[in-house]
Amino acid sequence: MTKKKKPIILITNDDGFRARGIRTLTEYLKDVADIIVFAPDSPQSGMSSAITSINPLRYFLYKEEDNVKTYICNGTPVDCIKLAMNVLDVKPDMIFSGINHGSNAAISVVYSGTIGAAIEGCIFGIPSVGVSLCDFGVDADFSQSGIIATRIAQKIMDEGLPKGVCLNVNVPKGEVKGLQVASQTQGKWTNEYYPSKDGAQRDVYWLRGRFDNWEVDNKNTDEWALTNGFAAVVPVKIDMTDYDMINKLKHWEEELSKMYK
Amino acid sequence: MTKKKKPIILITNDDGFRARGIRTLTEYLKDVADIIVFAPDSPQSGMSSAITSINPLRYFLYKEEDNVKTYICNGTPVDCIKLAMNVLDVKPDMIFSGINHGSNAAISVVYSGTIGAAIEGCIFGIPSVGVSLCDFGVDADFSQSGIIATRIAQKIMDEGLPKGVCLNVNVPKGEVKGLQVASQTQGKWTNEYYPSKDGAQRDVYWLRGRFDNWEVDNKNTDEWALTNGFAAVVPVKIDMTDYDMINKLKHWEEELSKMYK
Repeated sequence: MTKKKKPIILITNDDGFRARGIRTLTEYLKDVADIIVFAPDSPQSGMSSAITSINPLRYFLYKEEDNVKTYICNGTPVDCIKLAMNVLDVKPDMIFSGINHGSNAAISVVYSGTIGAAIEGCIFGIPSVGVSLCDFGVDADFSQSGIIATRIAQKIMDEGLPKGVCLNVNVPKGEVKGLQVASQTQGKWTNEYYPSKDGAQRDVYWLRGRFDNWEVDNKNTDEWALTNGFAAVVPVKIDMTDYDMINKLKHWEEELSKMYK
Repeated sequence: MTKKKKPIILITNDDGFRARGIRTLTEYLKDVADIIVFAPDSPQSGMSSAITSINPLRYFLYKEEDNVKTYICNGTPVDCIKLAMNVLDVKPDMIFSGINHGSNAAISVVYSGTIGAAIEGCIFGIPSVGVSLCDFGVDADFSQSGIIATRIAQKIMDEGLPKGVCLNVNVPKGEVKGLQVASQTQGKWTNEYYPSKDGAQRDVYWLRGRFDNWEVDNKNTDEWALTNGFAAVVPVKIDMTDYDMINKLKHWEEELSKMYK
């Protein structure tokens, strides 16, 4: 094999540049690639694919050390990817987002800023991966997630990743038994608010919730993998079209177009 | 046919409760259903499926008139749906989001707060529709969009909509020739920032961009429909799993699990 040029990995997250998860991810990936970190200056949990349009964005180079350049900005995870790609004009070989402090399995993929950034990377045509650790504890151990991210980066360097698909990787808390390629578990969050009072005794509502798994017995799902000690890799499509449904709705065309004839 | 009970439609948007689009949508849909509006108190464009977790949410009943109850809240479009469904405990037959002031066709589906709310409605198992008018003008005429929304509401009352799929409806500016069931156009926004200066002459970046259509000649896409004067209806899946890709990545399981054996 010929020796390859060191790849460039662009890293972001949704917990902000100070978070332990992104620092761990950077420590591991800098052994296999040159790193550009472009991360939010503050926590951006639950920001999904949100973009900032009403207010202006600012960014600056925060630190340069070894083969790691760190930029921070006042936007969302998707803003970070867009700014890095448009304004810095970097040409990363891969984009990694995370390591998120908490699960992004099942329906959480929809709300996740970590995965929002990976989807954005995928829109740019770059192989992109979101990595999350299913442990909300302050003493969470991100090292297994860092190792798994590195192995996946090496796999992508060897095999590539097709256009239009990114990876949602969730790592279980505690011992990891292996890795499972899985589907997004069907289910939803329930009992989603904790009602409380503010200082003036007015009603306020805090987001919380419990995940209701609708396919507990499906061994092909990410929740099954995680519950059984496996890291779950879900391939996520950026084309959200339901192609089967297009055919089922075709008769609407004639029926609803009548009024225009 | 037996006379049915009047359905309940929950309406939200991402331009805020004062926007002309949501007022037009309400005016049209209140003829066929009892309406609960639960909308953001301020513009929430580009908020995707973002949820508010760090700060508390507040809501209040703003107005009650005829068969329309209007609530406003300090959250995102998804927060509005979650609060209405969890805290108000309403049981809507359908959820409509919009009418957005501007297109949500093609890749914009990913960033859209309008569609974020429709996806959230779909997660709750309620037939949900996002409606957008491809006209950013201040004098935009929302009436055609209101008519199309009403027809689609009637279709859903008659035929239902399967679980796990919602509709992204975009209406062209000007004369509407009919309706087309279409796929999400492949493409991306380019040249996405306008660099400028703030009052202290520091660099700031404003989001802008031009949509680069990668399948201009594909007559089955939403952009083709819109360019040719048709309203586009794209069925959007909430399961983002790429099932074909699961098989293609299966060999990773053994290869990446080795380190744990």
